[in-house]
Amino acid sequence: MAPAGRASARQRTRNHRPGGVVQLPRQPVRLLYRPIEILAADQVEAIHQASLEILRDIGVNFLLPEAREILRQGGAMLEDGGSRVRFDPALVEALVARAPDRFVLHARNPAHDCIIGGDHLCFLTVGGAPNISDLARGRRPGNFADYCDVLRVAQSLNVIHAVAGYPLEPIDLDPKERHLVAGEALATLTDKPLFGIPLGRRRILDMIEMARLVHGLSEAELLLRPVIFTNINANSPLQYDRPMLWAMIEMARANQPTIVTPFTLAGAMAPVTIVGALAQQNAEALAGIALIQLVRPGAPVVYGGFTSNVDMHSGAPAFGTPEATQAAIIGGQLVRRYRLPYRLSNVNSANAPDAQAAYESAMSLWGAIMGGGNMIIHAAGWMEGGLCASFEKMVIDAEMLQMMVRDTLALDAMHEVGPAGHYFGARHTLARYETAFYTPMLSDWRSYQSWRDAGSPDTAVRAAGLVKRLLADYQPPPLDPARRDALAAFVARRRAEGGAPPED
Amino acid sequence: MAPAGRASARQRTRNHRPGGVVQLPRQPVRLLYRPIEILAADQVEAIHQASLEILRDIGVNFLLPEAREILRQGGAMLEDGGSRVRFDPALVEALVARAPDRFVLHARNPAHDCIIGGDHLCFLTVGGAPNISDLARGRRPGNFADYCDVLRVAQSLNVIHAVAGYPLEPIDLDPKERHLVAGEALATLTDKPLFGIPLGRRRILDMIEMARLVHGLSEAELLLRPVIFTNINANSPLQYDRPMLWAMIEMARANQPTIVTPFTLAGAMAPVTIVGALAQQNAEALAGIALIQLVRPGAPVVYGGFTSNVDMHSGAPAFGTPEATQAAIIGGQLVRRYRLPYRLSNVNSANAPDAQAAYESAMSLWGAIMGGGNMIIHAAGWMEGGLCASFEKMVIDAEMLQMMVRDTLALDAMHEVGPAGHYFGARHTLARYETAFYTPMLSDWRSYQSWRDAGSPDTAVRAAGLVKRLLADYQPPPLDPARRDALAAFVARRRAEGGAPPED
Repeated sequence: MAPAGRASARQRTRNHRPGGVVQLPRQPVRLLYRPIEILAADQVEAIHQASLEILRDIGVNFLLPEAREILRQGGAMLEDGGSRVRFDPALVEALVARAPDRFVLHARNPAHDCIIGGDHLCFLTVGGAPNISDLARGRRPGNFADYCDVLRVAQSLNVIHAVAGYPLEPIDLDPKERHLVAGEALATLTDKPLFGIPLGRRRILDMIEMARLVHGLSEAELLLRPVIFTNINANSPLQYDRPMLWAMIEMARANQPTIVTPFTLAGAMAPVTIVGALAQQNAEALAGIALIQLVRPGAPVVYGGFTSNVDMHSGAPAFGTPEATQAAIIGGQLVRRYRLPYRLSNVNSANAPDAQAAYESAMSLWGAIMGGGNMIIHAAGWMEGGLCASFEKMVIDAEMLQMMVRDTLALDAMHEVGPAGHYFGARHTLARYETAFYTPMLSDWRSYQSWRDAGSPDTAVRAAGLVKRLLADYQPPPLDPARRDALAAFVARRRAEGGAPPED
Repeated sequence: MAPAGRASARQRTRNHRPGGVVQLPRQPVRLLYRPIEILAADQVEAIHQASLEILRDIGVNFLLPEAREILRQGGAMLEDGGSRVRFDPALVEALVARAPDRFVLHARNPAHDCIIGGDHLCFLTVGGAPNISDLARGRRPGNFADYCDVLRVAQSLNVIHAVAGYPLEPIDLDPKERHLVAGEALATLTDKPLFGIPLGRRRILDMIEMARLVHGLSEAELLLRPVIFTNINANSPLQYDRPMLWAMIEMARANQPTIVTPFTLAGAMAPVTIVGALAQQNAEALAGIALIQLVRPGAPVVYGGFTSNVDMHSGAPAFGTPEATQAAIIGGQLVRRYRLPYRLSNVNSANAPDAQAAYESAMSLWGAIMGGGNMIIHAAGWMEGGLCASFEKMVIDAEMLQMMVRDTLALDAMHEVGPAGHYFGARHTLARYETAFYTPMLSDWRSYQSWRDAGSPDTAVRAAGLVKRLLADYQPPPLDPARRDALAAFVARRRAEGGAPPED
């Protein structure tokens, strides 16, 4: 079945494949399909109005006095002596309208620049897991060595566009300087867009500065060029905490993008109905975006949707649920009303990289894509409701991501529908045979007998093999020595200064 | 977290749950979302026109003289002395337009009647696997004991609406009487709609008669009531074989529904591009439907889409591919043009019920649902590109099916978007807590520690446990003794007569 010349063509490209792993080329990704609409326009409008009423009648707690002062000066209503802030609906709408509908998030390697918004799509790793696992060594607390390996895998997989947060928390690093050490690793082991840890003013300022240095920008240039992004969470219901508020304010001052993500878990921190939870999500997101637009009109923001539901039997969060998928899709209808970029997730509740992990992730990922998400956080490596990152799951997810964005029809050239039967020609077939169909990275399409004779490796075992090959073949991306030295000097100085206090 | 009264409510319904397995209630299923449209209307029209040109200029081989005679009398063009039949485009369009856009497929238990067409959806088991596997006993050739157990599981799972084909081929039964013995088991172990094995005239007539007897219908009543369905495949490219043609003809004479499914594997029996393969699929499907409509105008038919692609490296069929998903979706655009019910599939190429099995199935299943499929064959239990049925995969699939059809918003009552913050009330929460969210059948949402302490059961292991419980608690559905005896007498007589010869 192999046309002549195929082996040599494969040979030519092999050197561009870390570990010999066959994957889609490094490329921008766009939504293949128009987002689904579940609700009618008047129903979307009803949720929008309900969220404005929440902001006007109940309000949101902003725990940082500096944030409240910005909001007060911008026209929001402050409770005397408390942290509650209420908003006039017209004010919220005017502020949200200041945000751009899309922006370019620059990487230090321009090949990894991401357009955020419109029908563009980018996939980010798991973020924030306290644990890490692989088949060989099992589950263990997050640590710097594994953190660096996850960065290497993320750098090697073309379909992963950036790292989110600490994919796993490197708890063996001193918390005061964790962001410095881990940030330097991120900026040197990968050349994809940088994530800033949003835990207080000092940390986010450090990380913005590190991004500036590694990009070789002046402070004025930084203001014109998004080079670092962060994700902050509301402390739902209806509250923003100090560290997150500092991150929002300082990122906006530097004109760098923040994803504003309420954590509205229906049945716990949010109402028990999806529509109710979405009204709350929307109120919280709009309030955060309003603050950012007061700090700097036009600062890039992303609307984050993370509404899921509890397990009714334990009260614990559940992920990859049908309800979360519907929330993602309806959330998209709201976000498109505001013409904002939209962040969603690829999540699951499974304890092992098995069928459940895959089908819950598939449920979540389809919601993310059919909901019109532009940035998909936790797209690769999330397990256990976020409590563990998994090396094998990173590869399983990468295969799923590739399958969901592979655009066959672009290759398939609709104009070829012509005279009957011309498709049957040998010439037509030979010209397309190599590239006609998606070639899997991980899926095993051997016959049962061949697979059994090879030791019956299941998907997780094969994924572990791919991780090993990617790590063995990893090469750090080039970095201008002057920038590398400037970054190292900054990190050394800030560590010598004691890093960042617990919260500032 | 458990409101008062919950335990007793669970107690009350437990007796309706075979094996204590928590599952969605027995209910009709409808598409939650409007189908996706990938192509513009003129592009769909171009594929339609290309398929009509194939039928006019190339034609289709009908290997059964009786079929050719029906086609000749109906106005199709026959090649002298050969089996090739060509069609005038206007004739094809007129014949296809005779088919109903929907029909009711009756089960002997009216609670299991299925509406086929429109936005109705029904899920069928895997069909046609030569092997069967489970975790405990491994992979083995199809056999009657396992066949019966698969029927019992299919009967017990509410989200499975019917059995398709022999889910696994019971090769220990004499081929001459296999359809009789297996058919009697199907009609007695389940009370869901019946499938007729389409291998020749004698077999399909036997099975239509068995359906008539078990439904207690006269021959005149049978003509008014679809009670048995079949699926036939074109022998692509562009050929219909004798046994399938007999099934199409005799099912149409009895006014029973046939699913007409070309097996257009892009890169093998069909062109290497998806659009080319779809043009061929459409030509083959329309030719088969045209024959059926000549036998009996208005006979119920379903347009079957099964376009997938080969593995470019082995030439073997691949399933659950991105290309197949796009073909399913574009196929739906064509089928809706003809206002016909649409059959799709849930397939994968995996050798074990692991992550690959789940993500390939999820890819396929989402294509089936977002493509607007009405009947999803192989919805539960398919593995290895169809070469093996799996007990564990049946349950894994059933969970995925449930997740994809769970309609949260119907419970969620949009009119509840009202005054701000009313969702936050305890009364709102308590009233909804029990039913607000999907409760999984198979997914394990325990903490990692609890799961590990329970022996770290992965999804396949848990699925095996559910199968065991379902089988242990299985009860045959009631059947009127007179009908049961009539069926048994017919089967005994036909076996005594020698059953059905190899092909007739």
